[in-house]
Amino acid sequence: MCDTSSKTPIWQAIAQALRSDLAEGRYAPGDKLPTEAALAERFGVNRHTVRHGISALADEGLIRTRRGAGAFVASTPTDYPIGRKVRFHDNLTAAGRLPEKRVLLVEDRFATDGEAQALTINTGDPVCAFHGLSLADGQPIAVFESVFPLSRTPGISAAFGAQGSVTEALANVGVADYTRASTRVTAVRAGATHALHLQIAEGDPLLRSSSVNVNLAGSPIEYGRTWFVGDRITLTLDT
Amino acid sequence: MCDTSSKTPIWQAIAQALRSDLAEGRYAPGDKLPTEAALAERFGVNRHTVRHGISALADEGLIRTRRGAGAFVASTPTDYPIGRKVRFHDNLTAAGRLPEKRVLLVEDRFATDGEAQALTINTGDPVCAFHGLSLADGQPIAVFESVFPLSRTPGISAAFGAQGSVTEALANVGVADYTRASTRVTAVRAGATHALHLQIAEGDPLLRSSSVNVNLAGSPIEYGRTWFVGDRITLTLDT
Repeated sequence: MCDTSSKTPIWQAIAQALRSDLAEGRYAPGDKLPTEAALAERFGVNRHTVRHGISALADEGLIRTRRGAGAFVASTPTDYPIGRKVRFHDNLTAAGRLPEKRVLLVEDRFATDGEAQALTINTGDPVCAFHGLSLADGQPIAVFESVFPLSRTPGISAAFGAQGSVTEALANVGVADYTRASTRVTAVRAGATHALHLQIAEGDPLLRSSSVNVNLAGSPIEYGRTWFVGDRITLTLDT
Repeated sequence: MCDTSSKTPIWQAIAQALRSDLAEGRYAPGDKLPTEAALAERFGVNRHTVRHGISALADEGLIRTRRGAGAFVASTPTDYPIGRKVRFHDNLTAAGRLPEKRVLLVEDRFATDGEAQALTINTGDPVCAFHGLSLADGQPIAVFESVFPLSRTPGISAAFGAQGSVTEALANVGVADYTRASTRVTAVRAGATHALHLQIAEGDPLLRSSSVNVNLAGSPIEYGRTWFVGDRITLTLDT
């Protein structure tokens, strides 16, 4: 049976008080929280209990702790819906953020094994690879590499405008519409190159997504890999 | 227009050769790759080029590099499908892994703001919280905390068996079936407690998922938060 008459543990009460502080905007994203000693005094408890409460907020992603430096309020990540239609520009605009893309490189090359498998083409078939950086309100949120099979998207490498819109480029080569067929997601450490582009520290957690988009006939026309900054993006799925 | 007559860059060829080695099982998960010097000799290139190729494999998640220790073959993560029906036992069995759960704590307490919002109840309403550890073939893959609103799942805290099956516990309190309504995913660093449970290093990347399951009437009956080890799990979504 359920006994709900017991009191909330003190560390949970402290976590809840800090959550309310954050919800009320008492601390802004990036702000340093008061020290453990200061919080222990405020709540009238020992530092161990404060640490337990802070640790719960860190697990929830509300704050980030840096060894020796203290606890900082995490930025509110931008929701990024994954569904049948995934459009960077629309997703960011819907979240009230200003979308921007920077084209790093558009290159023609040959498909690797993994790319060929995802695109249902043969290893070594020609593809165009589009490397870029995605930003929200001027802050980098992701690096990506999208690969397009030239047999189904002929001439696409010349079709990317300055805005780097995939939807426009695909439309320009005859793919009027496309839908997301599958997405795979895991968490990885940022390597040196990604860290540099994303203005984060090497080793910071990234959300790595790989996805396949298909044309109206159901044939794969884009295999995309995206490395999102964990603190800045939450992927959302309605099922 | 697309010019695919140019040769594949050497670093890409090296990455591809190493990918083939991995695909053929020449190195097993956890194995250390040969040193950069050894690979440079094997491919007849300089170490910078080898490093570029290895860096590409690290970005793809095929290998993990540890500063000063070298490059290691990553374990193949287990695919974990997210759809309308998400069942831990079925997901693991379908991936050919042996599922196991360890119950860490079942406690009755009061809903926090976030839990109340997710479950469409009031802050402070009674809930049962189920904390546990999920394993695949004996290896920890995730820690989780699931919260059930007692108004819709009366007596559930006494209904969890030794196997920790949520589906069984819900069936025992009258929830015959349930579906996943929404899932939110981001990447975070492992804290000390999670690292201990998951047998990983503090700061290692975790995939944090929060989800809401609803009963046949569409009312939320479970709000779950799961911290998956990034190297061990890939969430997959068909849309």
